[in-house]
Amino acid sequence: MAIIVQKYGGTSVASLDHIRRVAESVAARKRNGHDLVVVVSAMSGQTDQLLEMAAKISAEPSDREQDALVSTGEQVCAALMAITLNSIGCPASSLMGLQLPLITNSVHTKARILDLHTGKLKQLFSEGIVPVVAGFQGISEEGNITTLGRGGSDTTAVAIAAALGADCCEIYTDVDGIYTADPNICPKARHLEKISYSEMLELASLGAKVLHSRSVELAQKYAVPLVVKSSFGSDKQTWIVNEEDIMEDSVIQGVTLERNVSKISLIRVPDRPGIAHRILSPLADAAINVDMIIQNASIDGFADFTFTIAKTDREKATQLVEKVAAEIGAPKVLAANNIVKVSAVGIGIKTNPGVAAKMFKSLSTENINIEMISTSEYRISCVIEEKYGELAVRAIHQAFELEGSPQAVEGEQ
Amino acid sequence: MAIIVQKYGGTSVASLDHIRRVAESVAARKRNGHDLVVVVSAMSGQTDQLLEMAAKISAEPSDREQDALVSTGEQVCAALMAITLNSIGCPASSLMGLQLPLITNSVHTKARILDLHTGKLKQLFSEGIVPVVAGFQGISEEGNITTLGRGGSDTTAVAIAAALGADCCEIYTDVDGIYTADPNICPKARHLEKISYSEMLELASLGAKVLHSRSVELAQKYAVPLVVKSSFGSDKQTWIVNEEDIMEDSVIQGVTLERNVSKISLIRVPDRPGIAHRILSPLADAAINVDMIIQNASIDGFADFTFTIAKTDREKATQLVEKVAAEIGAPKVLAANNIVKVSAVGIGIKTNPGVAAKMFKSLSTENINIEMISTSEYRISCVIEEKYGELAVRAIHQAFELEGSPQAVEGEQ
Repeated sequence: MAIIVQKYGGTSVASLDHIRRVAESVAARKRNGHDLVVVVSAMSGQTDQLLEMAAKISAEPSDREQDALVSTGEQVCAALMAITLNSIGCPASSLMGLQLPLITNSVHTKARILDLHTGKLKQLFSEGIVPVVAGFQGISEEGNITTLGRGGSDTTAVAIAAALGADCCEIYTDVDGIYTADPNICPKARHLEKISYSEMLELASLGAKVLHSRSVELAQKYAVPLVVKSSFGSDKQTWIVNEEDIMEDSVIQGVTLERNVSKISLIRVPDRPGIAHRILSPLADAAINVDMIIQNASIDGFADFTFTIAKTDREKATQLVEKVAAEIGAPKVLAANNIVKVSAVGIGIKTNPGVAAKMFKSLSTENINIEMISTSEYRISCVIEEKYGELAVRAIHQAFELEGSPQAVEGEQ
Repeated sequence: MAIIVQKYGGTSVASLDHIRRVAESVAARKRNGHDLVVVVSAMSGQTDQLLEMAAKISAEPSDREQDALVSTGEQVCAALMAITLNSIGCPASSLMGLQLPLITNSVHTKARILDLHTGKLKQLFSEGIVPVVAGFQGISEEGNITTLGRGGSDTTAVAIAAALGADCCEIYTDVDGIYTADPNICPKARHLEKISYSEMLELASLGAKVLHSRSVELAQKYAVPLVVKSSFGSDKQTWIVNEEDIMEDSVIQGVTLERNVSKISLIRVPDRPGIAHRILSPLADAAINVDMIIQNASIDGFADFTFTIAKTDREKATQLVEKVAAEIGAPKVLAANNIVKVSAVGIGIKTNPGVAAKMFKSLSTENINIEMISTSEYRISCVIEEKYGELAVRAIHQAFELEGSPQAVEGEQ
């Protein structure tokens, strides 16, 4: 008898029919004697609908209230799922984040988990009741409803799995696992049976929408075995495991395209110590993540300072940076949206010095100009013009020979 | 500087435009220096939409889950209202029932308030923030989300007003107060400037939808001055006050038509002590209110036992009664839906013995058969066939000369 946490994404619970199918599968697993926790996202489209209403009222709706608003999407889905489970003879109780409670800090719209109580879940286990937890949401120590930001329901599921010491955390979504690239962009992309936490972390932080990096981070930290499955009947799945469990000797495992990128440049910044901190600390205070940073060589005591952020943070970030620019006497702030980030990811990168050169060559062969570069142990990323994004993915995918042979794909099923 | 609790019903917050108009009026009142609490219902139609989803899944959705589901309607509206207030420069914070907290018993879908904490509200007052409370909902001592049943948002508003010792509780709705009858049924109905708690209580319990009886009960108990206003620009309003503050000498103040009535009859019940208790106690256990009860004279040791309940409770009640009928050997249970209850209400009834006779005469003149009768200090009610309901209201209204003269109506404005 195992403890299993299952998370169902928005497309898996898109309609009452979808919810019924999921419920039947949950009830079947429950009958096998496992202790199940079901974590649900909002029905697909619900969160956007709520955000649109808020956006119609105000260009910058209060973060606290936006959280109170959008958290209802998951609550509705959790209640509908529990009603469905009860109706087919599988006792279930819905729980909002604040009923667990899942305690977070107070950074609304992207709160971080501070604590998670499992007493309620264990009590329900002992009564044979399946807890259906509204993902994505928690409560701050001040008693305000918070949300965990993008991929928050995955984070909820992994956090619960970690806190319960669950045997595994199953992430059900509309794809059957991780591919070497987005098959919509790269038709020859190959399905992966296994990938390491570190690689998944890079892929996730680079816009692979299957799993959010925070949930992978958490899974790695607490050694939660994670598996990505399709809720639409495919037998394929991808396990996310420790590096040492990866058998294959691929240099890179995947190529990603990140579209949610904006670039902000401060022109003619006085080149003196502390300037970078002065520019970036207001962003940190506002919980805006800065990704790539470039400061060009100083000319006559001035330099240009460029960094990338999530496109969704652009408005707020630009406001903050314009304020700093005025204070430090930088005459101009430029913001660009028409860029993307392509990346190659793999645990082989750190031990294969030629990987970067090969990637750059594949881009230059297609006449794609590289605007910014960043690298890590497991990743090489290039910022390029948006219009070349998909071409770049295909070029890199081909350069590293990531295509699957039909036999290999069949063998994985 | 007064403490004022305002409650806005579903039609007053039916769209984002409606919400904006309400917010502007709230902000204006706030600028006058009052401490305001805003209580909101779900946007009109939302609750029904959520209930329909639950009904599509199951004929009898779990009560606990239905509460978790429908409570999101008020939460959405409270968050949208708070976003709107913040956007027009009036600081506001939405609060779910469980954030106050408003503690209830565990009778899901019709919970009763056990306790209401005002600390959070007072804290927000001290910070100049308008609390926007999601009406209709609370949390049980076991930590489950509960709802207060029909008119629950009114109850929330009055309970908050009582707990805060507010100067008054304003109920904003789509009508401008209480009339001698529903103007849709009786075009000559007259607007009332004042009505006593006791009369309002009778009217409310009889299906006048403007205020629910529980909220009036609570207002009377804690002497909360209550006023019903239109949120659509009318200057008329109706104050609900103590009996001694009613100047007019009307024998009756209003005529009502209650459509949410079902009748259940047990045929040939053994006529022995304890039978009524045996039949009705399972209903009480299931929190189903029984209204009128008739047991006819015993013939050869058997009698027919008939009672009325809310139409919405019919299915559950019939099930419970059929079980008892089988146990006590009553051969038949009949349930009828095609009935209504017409009532005359007024504090003059107890001191005017001829009122009942006058009412029965007005019905008999129209050839309307009376199936059941019940009376109280302030009320005479008759159950009749549904198809005669509106005719009966007009007949009684005319018999007691309740029509307003045009002058009188103008004088009230």
